[in-house]
Amino acid sequence: MTRLRCWYELRLAAMLLVATVLTGCATTVGNSSPLVIEKQGAFAVGGKVLANADGTTLHCDHGMVDYQIPPKPRAVNLLMWHSASTVAWQNRWDGGEGYQSIFLRRGFPVYLWDGPRVGRANWACTELTLAPALGQDQRNFVSWRFGREYPNWYEGTQFPKDDTEALNQAMRGRYQEFDILDNVQLEAEAAAKLIDKIGPTVALTNSAAGFRAQLVATKTNNLKAIVAYESVGYVFPQGEGPGSKPSAFGPLEIPLEDFLKLTKIPIQIVWGDNVEKVATFKATLAQCKLFVEVVNKHGGHAELLMLTDLGLKGNTHLPFADMNNVVVADLLSKFLHAHGLDAYVH
Amino acid sequence: MTRLRCWYELRLAAMLLVATVLTGCATTVGNSSPLVIEKQGAFAVGGKVLANADGTTLHCDHGMVDYQIPPKPRAVNLLMWHSASTVAWQNRWDGGEGYQSIFLRRGFPVYLWDGPRVGRANWACTELTLAPALGQDQRNFVSWRFGREYPNWYEGTQFPKDDTEALNQAMRGRYQEFDILDNVQLEAEAAAKLIDKIGPTVALTNSAAGFRAQLVATKTNNLKAIVAYESVGYVFPQGEGPGSKPSAFGPLEIPLEDFLKLTKIPIQIVWGDNVEKVATFKATLAQCKLFVEVVNKHGGHAELLMLTDLGLKGNTHLPFADMNNVVVADLLSKFLHAHGLDAYVH
Repeated sequence: MTRLRCWYELRLAAMLLVATVLTGCATTVGNSSPLVIEKQGAFAVGGKVLANADGTTLHCDHGMVDYQIPPKPRAVNLLMWHSASTVAWQNRWDGGEGYQSIFLRRGFPVYLWDGPRVGRANWACTELTLAPALGQDQRNFVSWRFGREYPNWYEGTQFPKDDTEALNQAMRGRYQEFDILDNVQLEAEAAAKLIDKIGPTVALTNSAAGFRAQLVATKTNNLKAIVAYESVGYVFPQGEGPGSKPSAFGPLEIPLEDFLKLTKIPIQIVWGDNVEKVATFKATLAQCKLFVEVVNKHGGHAELLMLTDLGLKGNTHLPFADMNNVVVADLLSKFLHAHGLDAYVH
Repeated sequence: MTRLRCWYELRLAAMLLVATVLTGCATTVGNSSPLVIEKQGAFAVGGKVLANADGTTLHCDHGMVDYQIPPKPRAVNLLMWHSASTVAWQNRWDGGEGYQSIFLRRGFPVYLWDGPRVGRANWACTELTLAPALGQDQRNFVSWRFGREYPNWYEGTQFPKDDTEALNQAMRGRYQEFDILDNVQLEAEAAAKLIDKIGPTVALTNSAAGFRAQLVATKTNNLKAIVAYESVGYVFPQGEGPGSKPSAFGPLEIPLEDFLKLTKIPIQIVWGDNVEKVATFKATLAQCKLFVEVVNKHGGHAELLMLTDLGLKGNTHLPFADMNNVVVADLLSKFLHAHGLDAYVH
C-alpha cells in the first residue's frame, strides 16, 4: 500500500510539473487533473435567537454555506445561489462536472448557499409545513424548460434526455423554497451578512435567487457583480416598475436611493433557449428587459445575454447544469475578466 | 496574473515532489498540504414516485449525498451519517478541519448523507411540519454533553467553550430530524440503496444515526463495518432486548435471522467523557453494553471504546467534531487498518 501511495504522489507531482512547463504557464490545470483545495467546510450565518420568558432559547433563521477555497485563490468569491437545490451547482444532471468544481479549478473560492429555511438551513423561527405537491414533476419539466409539456422534450435540448437516471436526479434535485416575500427579504439579509463576512463576492443565481440577489446589492457593498441565470423577479425604483402586483417572484419597487446601488455593479442576466415559447417566461423576459433598461438609464451596467445569440442551442432554465456547461462557464469567465473580477490575491 | 498563476503551479508541483521524496513515501500528505480530489458531486438515491389518477407525479422520500473521491482512493468508502447536521462532519465547531477533509487526506472516498426528509432531502412523500422548538438550545447543550446544565461547561471539555462563535455554530448546526420509527426504517432503506450503489462502505454515525445504521446492516451486504459515535438506539433479536418499549431511539427487536447479519461485520461504539453523569446517557450506555454482549454471544465482533479508558478527557457527544478530533480520527484509522478496511484499490 505504501508503495502504491508513493507511486501516486510521485506521479501527481511529476504530472503537475510537466503540465505547468509544457503549457508555458499560460493555462489553468485541465479538467482531467485532480482538484486542489486549500480549505473547505461549512458554516451558518445570520439568523436570530428566539427567547422564552424563562430565558430558554432557539437559534433559527440562519443560512448555511458550504465553501471550498483553492490554494492561491482569486480575490473575488463566487456565491452559487440555487432556486431548487445545491445539486444543480454541484454537477450536471448526468453527473458530469458542475460549476462548483469548474470554478474551483479556475481558481475561485466557491460558496454554495442554502438560504434561511431552505435545505440545510431549515430550522426556522416560525412553523413551516412541507407539503408533497403532486404534479410538481410535470410543472418542473415545463418551468425548467426541458420541454413544452411533459414528457415532450424540446428538440436539441442540452438536458441529457435519453439518460433516465439524469431525469430522476433532476426530479429529486430540489427542495421546498417557501417563496413568500417575507422569506425573500430574510434570505437577502442573511446573504448580505455572508458576503460581508467573506468579502468581495460575485453572486451567481438561478431563477428566483436572482430576485433575492438584487436585494442583496442594496444591503452590502461587498457584492461586486450579479450573473443571474434566468432571473425570475426584478426590483425597480418606486414608480418605474411594470405596475404589476409585488410577489415573491417580483416585481418589487424600492426607494430610488436603494435601487441606485444596483447601478454600481455589473449585472448580466443570461437566458437559454425556447424562452419565447412559454407565456410565463415571455413575460419574465419582458420584465428583465425593462429592468436592464431602467438600471442603465440610471447610469448602471446591466446586460442581457441571450445564449442563442451566440449560437448556443437547447439550453434549459439552468444553463450551468446543462451538457454544454463548460461553454456557458467560459462566458462567465469572460464576463469576470472583462470586469476585473478575476484577479488573484496579491 | 498569468505570472502569479504560473508561480503557484510550479511551486505546488515542486512542493509535492520534494515532500514525497523527503518523506521516503512513507506518509500521506500532511494536514497543511492542499487536499486533492479526483471527483466530487452530489446525487439523490432511493425514494418513491407518487402518482395521481391523472398520471401527474412527485418524486419524493429520496436521500441526498455529497461525495468526494481522492485520486487513487482506498477501496472502502466512508459514509458520514449525522444526527443533527452534515456540518459536524465538515469541520470542528471552531472551523478547524473535520472528518470529511481528514479522511479525504487519508485516501478514503467520503460521502456525507442527508437521509430522506432531512436537510437537502426534505421533499417528503408526506406532509411534514417544522416547528420552532424554544429551549432546544438548552436541551442540545445537555444532550451533546457540553455541560450538565446550560451554560455550565464540563471541566476540560473538548468543545472550544471560550469561542462564542463556535457555540453559535453548534446551536445552528442542526436541522429537524423527524425522529419517528417509520422514518428510521425509511432512512435505513435509502442508505442501504446508497451503499449498494457505491459499493463496500463503512458507516460512521453519530447518535440516532447509529440505530439506523444497524438496520442498514440487515438490508445490504455492502456495509462492511459500523463505527458509531455514541449510538442512541440499538436493535436486538426477538426476545433478547432489554424489554423497553420500541421507539425512534430504540430498542427494536428484529428477527434473529436479520440480527445475525450484524454479527458478520466489525462494530465499534465509541463514547466520550462524562457519560455516566447524565441519566439518559447512563441508560443508553447500559443498553449499548447489552447490544455488544448479544452481538458477540451470537458470534459477532462488536466492541465498546470508552475514550476515557485511553486517557482522552472532555469529549462530547460528537467526538469527531471536538478539538482533539485528529486523535479520535487516528483511533478510527487504527480500527479500519485492524479490520483490513483501508486497502487501496488494486
